[in-house]
Amino acid sequence: MKISAIRVTPIAIRDPALLNAAGVHEPFGLRSIIEVEGANGLVGLGETYGDAALLSLLTRCQHGLAGGSAFDLHRLWQQVQRHAAQAMAQTTAHGEMELAPGSLSSHLASSAYSAFEVAFLDLQARTLGIPLVDLLGGKVRDKVAYSAYLFYKWNAAVDPEYAPDPYGEALNPAQIVAQAQSMIAQYGFESIKLKAGVMDPMQEADAILALKAAFPGRPLRIDPNGNWSLATSLKVADRLQGSLEYYEDPTPTLEGMAQVHRASGMPLATNMVVTNWSELRRAVQIDAVQILLSDHHYWGGLRATQALAKTCEAFGLGLSMHSNSHLGISLMAMTHLAASVQHLSYACDTHYPWQSDEVLVGGKLPIVGGCVHLTDKPGLGVELDPHKLAELHDAFKSCRIRTRNDVAQMQRYRPDWRQIKPRF
Amino acid sequence: MKISAIRVTPIAIRDPALLNAAGVHEPFGLRSIIEVEGANGLVGLGETYGDAALLSLLTRCQHGLAGGSAFDLHRLWQQVQRHAAQAMAQTTAHGEMELAPGSLSSHLASSAYSAFEVAFLDLQARTLGIPLVDLLGGKVRDKVAYSAYLFYKWNAAVDPEYAPDPYGEALNPAQIVAQAQSMIAQYGFESIKLKAGVMDPMQEADAILALKAAFPGRPLRIDPNGNWSLATSLKVADRLQGSLEYYEDPTPTLEGMAQVHRASGMPLATNMVVTNWSELRRAVQIDAVQILLSDHHYWGGLRATQALAKTCEAFGLGLSMHSNSHLGISLMAMTHLAASVQHLSYACDTHYPWQSDEVLVGGKLPIVGGCVHLTDKPGLGVELDPHKLAELHDAFKSCRIRTRNDVAQMQRYRPDWRQIKPRF
Ligand SMILES: [Mg+2]
Ligand SMILES: [Mg+2]
Repeated sequence: MKISAIRVTPIAIRDPALLNAAGVHEPFGLRSIIEVEGANGLVGLGETYGDAALLSLLTRCQHGLAGGSAFDLHRLWQQVQRHAAQAMAQTTAHGEMELAPGSLSSHLASSAYSAFEVAFLDLQARTLGIPLVDLLGGKVRDKVAYSAYLFYKWNAAVDPEYAPDPYGEALNPAQIVAQAQSMIAQYGFESIKLKAGVMDPMQEADAILALKAAFPGRPLRIDPNGNWSLATSLKVADRLQGSLEYYEDPTPTLEGMAQVHRASGMPLATNMVVTNWSELRRAVQIDAVQILLSDHHYWGGLRATQALAKTCEAFGLGLSMHSNSHLGISLMAMTHLAASVQHLSYACDTHYPWQSDEVLVGGKLPIVGGCVHLTDKPGLGVELDPHKLAELHDAFKSCRIRTRNDVAQMQRYRPDWRQIKPRF
Repeated sequence: MKISAIRVTPIAIRDPALLNAAGVHEPFGLRSIIEVEGANGLVGLGETYGDAALLSLLTRCQHGLAGGSAFDLHRLWQQVQRHAAQAMAQTTAHGEMELAPGSLSSHLASSAYSAFEVAFLDLQARTLGIPLVDLLGGKVRDKVAYSAYLFYKWNAAVDPEYAPDPYGEALNPAQIVAQAQSMIAQYGFESIKLKAGVMDPMQEADAILALKAAFPGRPLRIDPNGNWSLATSLKVADRLQGSLEYYEDPTPTLEGMAQVHRASGMPLATNMVVTNWSELRRAVQIDAVQILLSDHHYWGGLRATQALAKTCEAFGLGLSMHSNSHLGISLMAMTHLAASVQHLSYACDTHYPWQSDEVLVGGKLPIVGGCVHLTDKPGLGVELDPHKLAELHDAFKSCRIRTRNDVAQMQRYRPDWRQIKPRF
């Protein structure tokens, strides 16, 4: 199937004031929507980060890709690599958001490839009239479980730039439990993840214990994004022994993670210290982590993430899935991927309940019983709504943000805020 | 695409008196030909080992697979695993041919899955009207290079069971060089592999030096199938320093291989000590080998071998390809796979020039300039000739062999022959 046109459209989507190790989410998150149009008129969809550097690379790539075959992923990789090399030669990295690994300059080529790969595979599957998962070996499961992704957060009233959200403030364990109750009532999640690294670590540990009491038996995870020292990580581990499904990125380095694992015996998960194949190799050598949070947005797409799953299985690593603020195209790509991988047996992370915008016909996708269900529709099974896309593109144009910066956003409210790691 | 029928047909193909570490090839090699017929009347093809245990498992599986979707590889894997577990419970392994890793009982499930997976993918691609390589991400190269695979061998006259072959006897370096000249004149191979472990190791090393003199600049490999002690391996390494592209399976254990590498500094390749993912993990831990000889027939099929390639790349291992006596369906599966993997950059091994039989319409496939060329035809791009298939199935029925046994074959000529490892 010959590609007749490729469109890359940056959009801005409303985001609540979610707190994290770096600072606070800005009122808009940036995404790039990819359309790969075939000579048959069908369109494959992709979605990825929208930060300036990646957006620029995606835009550089789009013209050269027209005229090629949607089945030729090697040509795609070569072109992306070539443009990435040119882009890297012209820019220097500065002020990067490591909470968004897919936007790191070291990941640019892989991230750009990933976004196009999904859209190419979607166009392949639509052309063939089969669900995308059938190009990934078929589905192991009909539905994919996601986790309730809890955040410490401010009320939208903190700043008129934030749109109102139904969850309100969450600054202590009781409010976190209330957030979980509200989110689980709406979506039915069976697993719970708390984004930490924000408050006093012992208060955060107490939030986990409060969740454990409120939701007995549900798998719990805590993720301070590497914002804790070794000593703090071990103190929290002590408090949470027997209460966690896994302990996600307590401390910032591979070596630190290995030490936390050795000392605590807890299974450690990461999407920060292992974000590419060479880090994986090192992690295996020193047994730094036991569970990898995969993410097709920067691991090189759906097929590469399947290969990653095989490697994790071979090397005795568990596999779960990382998320960033995203819309339904990413959600469906994550779902088709997770549905195809036996080894991906943990509930996946998703920010989707935090997003009120959507670019799809029919609006937000349903999450039922904590799961996204696959359908028999061709490709990803979702359709782009051109009006909504145009609206969110207008939001991008009028938005002041071009590269995510949670640190600067926090400095609006706390001028003395600094990026420190680990903070506690 | 619903599968309407699956046929597994054992065949016997003529094989010359090729010598190896275990003994000598029997006058017939066994293969299984898989046909997976879709409701649309199209047929996907597969080919694998034909030894009794695997053939029995393939046959057990064939009925349950009809009615499923050709896109549902997970269902395939589940069914194969279930039947393999039943089969294993009923049999005990004995007298296995480790030169044919895909027929080992520990590999049965993976080997059976591999054979069906190729046929499923072939049916998928034929149904979609695209070359199989397009389901593997498209081709990195239009043609795949193979190596001249030289053997010490007897003349067919040794036993009336052997069919005459054009190569005649090869028992010394001069005859090996003549064999290479003849094979390269016909097929144009650029790389040369010598199957060793047969004669005095120093004579075999001299054969490599004679090949180096006769074919200056061509990559050379020697493979004694683990038939040398550590001391012999190092003695040969000394003699061949600077003359080998890689040194294949000189000695029988992972630990021995690691020692040979440390002591000689030579890159070691294997298809014997790393034949599954858990052995790969161990090999990486102790840096036992530097190049892996992949083989989709027992690594779990084409997609799993692609994942293996990614793992090898990540862990710094080179990748080449192993072969066993095979016909054109296997050759084309190997070719589509190798064409899709950038990291598979060595010339692949093939026994194909040694086979005079073929089950394909048009007979033997061309090897030109040492390469097999891909075409734009759907699927594997080859068609089964039902008359030839029937003929070779008749040969199977009248053939005394049911499980390859090069040791017993050698004992016909040397009653005192024993399986010893390492022999030298
Ligand atoms: Mg994380
Ligand atoms: Mg070998």
